[in-house]
Amino acid sequence: MSTDAVLTHVDSQLGAATERLMELLRIPSISTDPAHAEACQHAADWLVADLASLGAEASKRPTPGHPMVVGHITEGVDNPDVHVLFYGHYDVQPVDPLDLWDRDPFDPQVEDTPRGKVIRGRGASDDKGQLMTFVEACRAWKAERGTLPCKITFFFEGEEESGSPSLIPFMEDNAEELKSDIALICDTGLFGTETPAIVTMLRGLLGEEVTITASSKDLHSGMYGGIAMNPIRVLSRMIAGLHDDQGRVTVPGFYDGVPELPQDIRDQWDGLDFDATGFLGEVGLSDPAGEADRTGLEMIWSRPTCEINGITGGYTGEGFKTVLPAKASAKISFRLVGQQDPHRIRENFRAYVQSSLPADCEVTFHGHGASPAGQMSTDDPMFEAARQALSLEWPQEAAYVGCGGSIPIAGYFKSILAMDAMLIGFGKDDDQIHSPNEKYDLDSFHRGIRSWVRVLEALSAKG
Amino acid sequence: MSTDAVLTHVDSQLGAATERLMELLRIPSISTDPAHAEACQHAADWLVADLASLGAEASKRPTPGHPMVVGHITEGVDNPDVHVLFYGHYDVQPVDPLDLWDRDPFDPQVEDTPRGKVIRGRGASDDKGQLMTFVEACRAWKAERGTLPCKITFFFEGEEESGSPSLIPFMEDNAEELKSDIALICDTGLFGTETPAIVTMLRGLLGEEVTITASSKDLHSGMYGGIAMNPIRVLSRMIAGLHDDQGRVTVPGFYDGVPELPQDIRDQWDGLDFDATGFLGEVGLSDPAGEADRTGLEMIWSRPTCEINGITGGYTGEGFKTVLPAKASAKISFRLVGQQDPHRIRENFRAYVQSSLPADCEVTFHGHGASPAGQMSTDDPMFEAARQALSLEWPQEAAYVGCGGSIPIAGYFKSILAMDAMLIGFGKDDDQIHSPNEKYDLDSFHRGIRSWVRVLEALSAKG
Repeated sequence: MSTDAVLTHVDSQLGAATERLMELLRIPSISTDPAHAEACQHAADWLVADLASLGAEASKRPTPGHPMVVGHITEGVDNPDVHVLFYGHYDVQPVDPLDLWDRDPFDPQVEDTPRGKVIRGRGASDDKGQLMTFVEACRAWKAERGTLPCKITFFFEGEEESGSPSLIPFMEDNAEELKSDIALICDTGLFGTETPAIVTMLRGLLGEEVTITASSKDLHSGMYGGIAMNPIRVLSRMIAGLHDDQGRVTVPGFYDGVPELPQDIRDQWDGLDFDATGFLGEVGLSDPAGEADRTGLEMIWSRPTCEINGITGGYTGEGFKTVLPAKASAKISFRLVGQQDPHRIRENFRAYVQSSLPADCEVTFHGHGASPAGQMSTDDPMFEAARQALSLEWPQEAAYVGCGGSIPIAGYFKSILAMDAMLIGFGKDDDQIHSPNEKYDLDSFHRGIRSWVRVLEALSAKG
Repeated sequence: MSTDAVLTHVDSQLGAATERLMELLRIPSISTDPAHAEACQHAADWLVADLASLGAEASKRPTPGHPMVVGHITEGVDNPDVHVLFYGHYDVQPVDPLDLWDRDPFDPQVEDTPRGKVIRGRGASDDKGQLMTFVEACRAWKAERGTLPCKITFFFEGEEESGSPSLIPFMEDNAEELKSDIALICDTGLFGTETPAIVTMLRGLLGEEVTITASSKDLHSGMYGGIAMNPIRVLSRMIAGLHDDQGRVTVPGFYDGVPELPQDIRDQWDGLDFDATGFLGEVGLSDPAGEADRTGLEMIWSRPTCEINGITGGYTGEGFKTVLPAKASAKISFRLVGQQDPHRIRENFRAYVQSSLPADCEVTFHGHGASPAGQMSTDDPMFEAARQALSLEWPQEAAYVGCGGSIPIAGYFKSILAMDAMLIGFGKDDDQIHSPNEKYDLDSFHRGIRSWVRVLEALSAKG
């Protein structure tokens, strides 16, 4: 049976699908901010209701943090021998600085832009819009055929943007229920604008919050300037020392377990014709700033990094205050690759900071997540089936690529549930995820839904 | 005629004087924050009314910023051949971080502490409490004698904590009206707790706000980490480069015009028996952090410094956000001594920052004040007269000292009005000015009022 009718249904119902996404986008489910805990509950409730409307047995599942949503459709499916799990996250990034948004981030709208229609709002791309591509594919299938092509488990979390503290315990506690043939994850992007991509290489992430304290209180820089230690100066010096002049990270042992790129992957990436200058030009930059001897794709996909995500100390308001602050702090993260051990790097980083402290300074650390890099096995024939299905929908052949971001869930499916994970997404580089004015192309949403229809068919046929 | 009766009057009316100060402290006249402009007007009005109650011809004088208060008592004084001007400022520092205050900073209270009674609240010491010591001395004199000892001009500004942008034009425009024999300024401290001090050496101040921008918007550190320039890293490296490993400032030409201390002043300072360890111990520190080859008093009185007063960039809220920020900024100030030229140092600093910028970064600068250091001439016999008068009131002989802070007004009296300035104040090192929980010892307030009674007598007798 061809999927043409299902795809036609998707086309005709795109307006209604967009309206449903807008409803979800209006819920300000910022997981990292305790003030938005209620909104996270609300988003989970919304999803439970939406899955129920597809005929799923769905429920909100409490955790010590924000709830999970789990739903199952196992009865009356076309091929009960195939069982896929779909993962997405309903939580979103904080929205500051608010004044850089052109509209209320939680009052989404479809906008006409020179590059086509976009859905504008926090979470439009990361990850509510992507999550809903799969849900809408199922809805269209069910509406047109009355059944679904295979058994499906939906698994949505609400803590992805805050380090997923509840995820591992939840997966461990519910391993039997979640176990399926393969995990499908929609939280990644196209390569360019027309090439669908299956991510087979994911960087890990280690976060550290460092606070350096000196005096017991803020001091007047007239009275104490010169004689008292300034923690901003100490913090700056520590940060400045994290990279050498070739852009390499100086933390001892940092490159242990970092592999060189295999020649076949290097060839494939060279074939992708990545334009670093154009990629950077989109955001007002021009010069690759990573390790001096690496290509642009290596810098973002296969090399580890150290980034300063935030820094604060002393007076930061309007005007000037001649204060010598008592403390200063920074949020620092490391993107990890290959076999880098996050726990070992955390230890070595902390030891480096300790060793850089002058007299009169103390440091406290607060860890935020520690996930190793992930590497998918593309030997599984499901990968090739999905790649061919995607290639039918888009102008260009689908490609296996790397991803600079961290999607630790992929590793957890492997380590906890012994499942492979297939990362397929439709975001674009200019989606401004984690930034003001986030958007998702209406075309990404539309073709994304159609893509899942095709992938579901391909995976179910295999069974 | 002895001043005993006036001093007795001061003693008996201390409670009423304290109440008046509390009224002034309740007005949140933070000059650096535009939201408090109305409070600055209110404080000025309060002072005009208070001076009028002494019989002064007083008025609030508009400026492009916060108003000046000027008052004159010239008729019916004991010695019309002597004319002193008294300067103070009614504006106060910002109060953040508010959560470190033990009480509302603008709900002042007299508190019993193990070291005696203190007046607690923002501005108690800097400078409302100090300002009122002089006003109350005049009030007591007038109440007891019916006259004042000499002609007096009161000159209060409301922009001292925000760089005094209106001060020079106002002094120039009103030079004839303000010209007097000498300026008395009460915005400094005792040496230790029992030694009154006349400051004859003041550091200048140059403030610079530096903002480094890289990408055109905040980026996701997964997508761009490694390839995109991080402005926090650039800013940290620039700051780390501002000092060498001996604690010397590296800005080119920075030490041009920095004199070595004359031997006689060095001997006098050695005699003051300054305990750097004890001084630092009060604020939880132990190790002098300035230039390696300098004494503690040199570090705070006669050596120039470079301090980072504030830094901010990226995500600084609760939790973690893996953002690559578009910009980062720091507030940096320099304390200047001797003949250092603030404008030249500003140029050289900006050139240093520009030269440290990598590709893809831009910098903007915002200057905050540029005042050279000040050096008083103690040859004027008024200095010795005041020093002896102060010595009568306090347990220890009064001393000529340096001051690490900047009181640019002293230099302006010299350059604009050709007047000497005498800096006498009663603050203590633990007053926590510019910090949470600012206080002024009730004893400082009391003896401060008595001190001015004695100084006024000594200066008027001279005429």
